[in-house]
This record gives sequence, structure tokens and C-alpha cells, in this order.
Amino acid sequence: MKNFDLSVYLVTDTDMCPRENLLDVCEKAVLGGATLIQLREKNISSRLFYEEAVALKQLCSKLNVPLLINDRLDIALASGADGVHIGQSDLPIEAVRGLLGNDRIIGVSAGCVKEAVNAEKRGADYLGVGAVFPTSTKDDAENVGIDMLRKVRSAVKIPIVGIGGINTENIEKLKGTGIDGVAVVSCIMASDDPKAAAAELKEKVEKL
Amino acid sequence: MKNFDLSVYLVTDTDMCPRENLLDVCEKAVLGGATLIQLREKNISSRLFYEEAVALKQLCSKLNVPLLINDRLDIALASGADGVHIGQSDLPIEAVRGLLGNDRIIGVSAGCVKEAVNAEKRGADYLGVGAVFPTSTKDDAENVGIDMLRKVRSAVKIPIVGIGGINTENIEKLKGTGIDGVAVVSCIMASDDPKAAAAELKEKVEKL
Repeated sequence: MKNFDLSVYLVTDTDMCPRENLLDVCEKAVLGGATLIQLREKNISSRLFYEEAVALKQLCSKLNVPLLINDRLDIALASGADGVHIGQSDLPIEAVRGLLGNDRIIGVSAGCVKEAVNAEKRGADYLGVGAVFPTSTKDDAENVGIDMLRKVRSAVKIPIVGIGGINTENIEKLKGTGIDGVAVVSCIMASDDPKAAAAELKEKVEKL
Repeated sequence: MKNFDLSVYLVTDTDMCPRENLLDVCEKAVLGGATLIQLREKNISSRLFYEEAVALKQLCSKLNVPLLINDRLDIALASGADGVHIGQSDLPIEAVRGLLGNDRIIGVSAGCVKEAVNAEKRGADYLGVGAVFPTSTKDDAENVGIDMLRKVRSAVKIPIVGIGGINTENIEKLKGTGIDGVAVVSCIMASDDPKAAAAELKEKVEKL
């Protein structure tokens, strides 16, 4: 049975956090309260991506949080990660499910109700919905606003996380949306104190 | 049992050949004499890469030639391709073999004897050795020269193809190197007559 906690969902970013600090920042974030890590890489060789995933999986196993890989199913399979997170221009959900099996996690990005309903129907285990607030970490992410969280929440049964520009300052605006957690990048990755940032998010997400 | 013919090995390039012409050029090349196709893509979404691989696999099955995918094991697995071709900075051979199984093909790029021997030992089915001649299609490929083909040939037992700047004009220089075939990009992909270019290569490769 799949059992995962989306409440403080950390998405990595090696533009904000140099690769040599990645494990350290992730460890601090989990010790502070992060419940899941998604490794997202762009413009990196498959070998380096793989090596990073293997090292991070080892850490995540030790800390007992799931590791998901963004987009690259092969890296997920080869590293023994707990699943993948895919966007609308990544591999089709069915193709991923066929190769990953039913025991591992598939998360899907959804920017509207139609994408959300479609992803649920095709077997997604959770949805990342956003961008909730304007964000600098994903240039192509349209700002869909807080209200989209409510709309998606009432349209699907699977867990959802809000993503996009969420931080310790604005998280309270998400109260009442019914989300299962918040996915953050800069709020932790660019923080001087990733542990404290994760802890503050954890505390605030529990009150949503 | 793996059974593949490396003699005229076509590597795709969508900088030279627009995507909408890719299937057409590949079909002509195979009808002219190309014996294997490697789909190489950079800077494309996983979804588009997958869709292209699925379409090309359908064509290759019809024409009875193997399709290999460059680097992306997930695309190979999801599209049902016949194998992958990996470089020195792609996934480790063992990781690929573990996921791809023993029936599908793993080719490995080697630029020196050490890399060639290592790849053979770790389970590569064939080697791509080069760059034989200076080439514009892969910026990072060091020109290792014709003599490297002879050195690698005497160091390993698995089949090898020469790659890098090989065309219908210079192919005869490879006589006596003991290679099993030539891998080409521009010679076919940028040709006005891909079928004739493949046929000429085929004729000349048989005389090496």
C-alpha cells in the first residue's frame, strides 16, 4: 500500500543550492519537517543525475521519507526511488505506470480542473496544482491562483499539493482550500536555515 | 538471441532534418540500405521524444531494422525500442542492463581502448568508436582518428562501428580497420537523397 505524506513537499533546485550542498540541505529540511523530496534536475548528464539520485535515495531511506524523481522515469527506476513526478509534457501516465508498477508513486502536475480530473482517471497518485503564487523557479508555470486549489479539490479524490511561490509568509492564505500539503522550492532551498524553514512550514501547514 | 547488423548505422539529427521529415528520411535510408537507426534527441520534452520514438519504432518494425534510443532508457522502455545507445556520461551499463534485460541491445560510445575494454567487460553489445574524422554534429567529440579503430578492434571481441564525420567520400579510408559498420549522421540526414546516400554507403561498407 502506498503511504506518503505530502504536507511539506520539498522540490530541489540546484540553481539555488549548489550540488555539493544538496544532501546537507535535504537532510536539514527533513529533520525540520519536510515529508517528501522531489529531485528536479535540468541540463545535467544522465550519469550525474543518476549518481545524485542514488545518494539522495540513500539519505531518504535513512530518514524514512519518499524520494520522487522529476520527469526521468529511467533515473527513478535505476536509483530505486519511490516514484516520479511528471508534468503535462512528460511521458504519458499509463506508460509510466506500466514500467513503474502499482507500488510506486506517480505524481502529476495539473494547472486546471480538466488536467486534474484527467490525471486522476489515468492513475495519478497525487496532484501538484499551481502555480498558486507567481514564481521565479519555473518560467513556464502559469499563475492559476488560490481558487484553483479549491476547484481541483472538489473535482478529484486523490491528494493534492499546492505549488508555486508558496513560503512561510503567504502559506496562511491557503487556509480552507483543502490541500494535503505545500510543495516548496526556494522557501527551503534558498534559505539560510532550511531546517527552521521546514519546521515553520510544517507548523503552518497543520493549521490549514 | 540478439541479431543486429551495424553496417549502415543511421543516427538521427533534427537540427539537420526537421522533425516532420524524420520518418520519411529514415524510411528512405532503410530502403537504400541503412541497417539500424538510433534516435538521438536533445532539448525536447519527454512527451515529444516518446511520441517520436513510438512512431519510429512502428516504422522500424515494418522495415525490420532495430531502433535504438540515445541515452534515454525510459524512452526506450516506454516505446518498445530494441535497445539504447549510451555514452560515457549516461547511465552506467549495469543499471541499463538490469532494467532492459538481456534480450535488448546496449551500445556504448568509446573514445579510447580503455573505455572500449571496460564497456565490453560490463556487458556492452557493440561499441561506437570515434570521432573518426572531425565532425560538427557533436561538439564534445574528440577526434581520435582511424588508428583508434584498429586499436579497439584488436582489444575487444564485440562488434564496433566507426562514428564521426564518415561519409561516402572518406569511408574508403577505413579499409582494413576491421570495423563492422559505419555510423553516420549528416551523410544521410542532410542529404537531398537519403536513399541514394545509404545505398552508396552500403556498397562501400561491404568492401571495407
